[in-house]
Amino acid sequence: MNTGLGARLAPDTRHPARARASIDARLLRRLLIGMGDPPVEFRLWNGERVAPAAGAPVASVAIADRATLFALLRDPQLRFGDGYTTGQLRIEGDLVQLMLAIYRSGTVAGDGGFVSGRLAGWMHRPRRNSFSGSRDNIHHHYDLGNDFYRLWLGETMAYTCAYYPTAAATLDEAQVAKMDHVCRKLRLRAGETVVEAGCGWGGLALHMARRYGARVRAFNISREQLEYARAQAQRSGLEHLVEFVEDDYRNITGRYDVFASVGMLEHVGRENYAELGRIARDCLAEHGRGLIHSIGRNRPEPLHPWIERRIFPGAYAPSLSEMMQIFEPWELSVLDVENIRLHYALTLRHWLERYESVTDRIAAMFDDNFVRMWRLYLAGSIAAFETGALQLFQVVFTARDNNDLPLTRRFLYPNES
Amino acid sequence: MNTGLGARLAPDTRHPARARASIDARLLRRLLIGMGDPPVEFRLWNGERVAPAAGAPVASVAIADRATLFALLRDPQLRFGDGYTTGQLRIEGDLVQLMLAIYRSGTVAGDGGFVSGRLAGWMHRPRRNSFSGSRDNIHHHYDLGNDFYRLWLGETMAYTCAYYPTAAATLDEAQVAKMDHVCRKLRLRAGETVVEAGCGWGGLALHMARRYGARVRAFNISREQLEYARAQAQRSGLEHLVEFVEDDYRNITGRYDVFASVGMLEHVGRENYAELGRIARDCLAEHGRGLIHSIGRNRPEPLHPWIERRIFPGAYAPSLSEMMQIFEPWELSVLDVENIRLHYALTLRHWLERYESVTDRIAAMFDDNFVRMWRLYLAGSIAAFETGALQLFQVVFTARDNNDLPLTRRFLYPNES
Repeated sequence: MNTGLGARLAPDTRHPARARASIDARLLRRLLIGMGDPPVEFRLWNGERVAPAAGAPVASVAIADRATLFALLRDPQLRFGDGYTTGQLRIEGDLVQLMLAIYRSGTVAGDGGFVSGRLAGWMHRPRRNSFSGSRDNIHHHYDLGNDFYRLWLGETMAYTCAYYPTAAATLDEAQVAKMDHVCRKLRLRAGETVVEAGCGWGGLALHMARRYGARVRAFNISREQLEYARAQAQRSGLEHLVEFVEDDYRNITGRYDVFASVGMLEHVGRENYAELGRIARDCLAEHGRGLIHSIGRNRPEPLHPWIERRIFPGAYAPSLSEMMQIFEPWELSVLDVENIRLHYALTLRHWLERYESVTDRIAAMFDDNFVRMWRLYLAGSIAAFETGALQLFQVVFTARDNNDLPLTRRFLYPNES
Repeated sequence: MNTGLGARLAPDTRHPARARASIDARLLRRLLIGMGDPPVEFRLWNGERVAPAAGAPVASVAIADRATLFALLRDPQLRFGDGYTTGQLRIEGDLVQLMLAIYRSGTVAGDGGFVSGRLAGWMHRPRRNSFSGSRDNIHHHYDLGNDFYRLWLGETMAYTCAYYPTAAATLDEAQVAKMDHVCRKLRLRAGETVVEAGCGWGGLALHMARRYGARVRAFNISREQLEYARAQAQRSGLEHLVEFVEDDYRNITGRYDVFASVGMLEHVGRENYAELGRIARDCLAEHGRGLIHSIGRNRPEPLHPWIERRIFPGAYAPSLSEMMQIFEPWELSVLDVENIRLHYALTLRHWLERYESVTDRIAAMFDDNFVRMWRLYLAGSIAAFETGALQLFQVVFTARDNNDLPLTRRFLYPNES
């Protein structure tokens, strides 16, 4: 009788003609079992195949050499992405399906994934978000060049989760709908003042001015993004309403009717949450409203180490209990939390589709390794949001003593024209 | 020059004819300054008046004797309510306005209120919610007699925050609207199964069966409530759809499409939150949804000690970070949080109005002390919700891997007929 782990390391007796599995294959098999045995086939450099115990593989991964395998065995979370980036791991089949299979198996494996995640989090401690650390971290990602992002982000240049009134909405429609959803949640009115912490390419700030008649001060520490945003303000004749400030959110001063931060919290660092909340409290005028939109988690857990290392240095996706450390020290009152994670899966699918259509131009800008690295980041993020490994929280808050509140949230859902 | 505390303890030099304040008056004055100097006038047993430093008093409090004053000085949070209950403190003017003034001054006093709350929390440690402790705690409040609650809760006998589609809704309309709001949030469909943890007099369980065709198992440890609920089920011909179980929520077994708990969490005790979450996770079928509706706080803070002692033994109102301890250990995914605290102020105003109209009957059931105690509880709760000292959170959650989710919350707001 062959049962359990031993059986899986033994040769496949259903195919007596097949050679006994090599030590390489058996080590890989053991790793895969620890990962919940995803339905993925691996091929070693010598042609040897390592198949899942059950089910048809959704994709196949070719490992170029023993060094790549051993790197994978040592640190799979980091080295899978690195191997794919360099081409030492080649994937045949649908990358998104592969990533979904890996994420789903990890969930089934249960706390195994959690524990290894914890371990990885310790091994790969996120970089600190001091003032200069934040500049370095933000520069790493957002200053890759406006030309790069323009190729696949769409008209709005919004690089955060969109909001799909229906799944059939286009990316641009959903990004504009997101801006309106945010403005409605904030009950933004003409003539009101807004401070935005982290403004990307300025799309929301300009939308607030153009569509709502708001006066906006928008902070960002990415110089390339700000240059683009200022040019857009000039082109749109909105310079008198929108001021783009190249500075850290920690230097926000003044009082405003609205505080908005969409997709910046991921870069703030948990050690700065209370400070962010203090800033939000101090800058809100009487009856002021705030909104923080961020990638999150169902429970405290470090970001995937490959993402934190290669894509978003210093980033962290908080659970709601962690996000509450922004608000609770200052008695800010949380009015509304909406989890729109499936919208991020849709957004990322749109981004990946556009990205794939311009990989030749991206390869010319950077190189093939870069093309693969970013493809994996987009595909892996689709899988993370579709499997619930990541969440997307929008939190609306106000001062404790603000009673100027609508009774219901019906105003968020005006009748369609 | 007289400034600061010393000046306030000195005689009022604007009224040279007035006698120098007694030591009693000066001690009381010091207490009131520590409370943020609410706009309330106090009268001592000898006719001496202690007025706020500024502003017209909204109400006047007469202190019967020195023993009452000294009790108040020693433990104002507990003894104010006790003195009002026994009649040793008599209030002239609007009780709700008085309580609003006290709550608002406490907020202005800032951390003073927080620190003294903490201290009081330590002095008056909440009673434990072990199995037998819960029975005693629940019996204390909910088994006062169905006849008592029937006098003022309205048709639905719902004893939790209602939901006012408009501020003009009646209490009964708002209670039914609350049940529908909860059922919509849970996306309850005909033929689905529900387990309810803490069902009061059974109103929601019967509503789910009657209006949605659901099959409900509803748990409660208050015998009087269950007797009433069973009689209602029989009267409505819903016995085949609703089973009322006299048992602790910790003994819930089975799997259901929906887990609902409205107004029970306040009695669960923080030490049992993770256990409650485990039960919710274990009992949810694939694609199952859960909702927990609870009084809450903007930050962790003990319940007002008089309320915890005299009205709700063992009760606690959690902050959102504390509520997340229900969900995060089990990776339950929070989909939606709505804060409807102003609805509880409206609900309580309706309850108090009805209560005042039947105090003669309540005095005949209990006594005058009871009438006053419960009046203060209702009036104080109005003030707590109107000033943001208390919140009301509805949290919707599901399993991590449930993707059977609507994209938007528009379905919660169907067009009015």
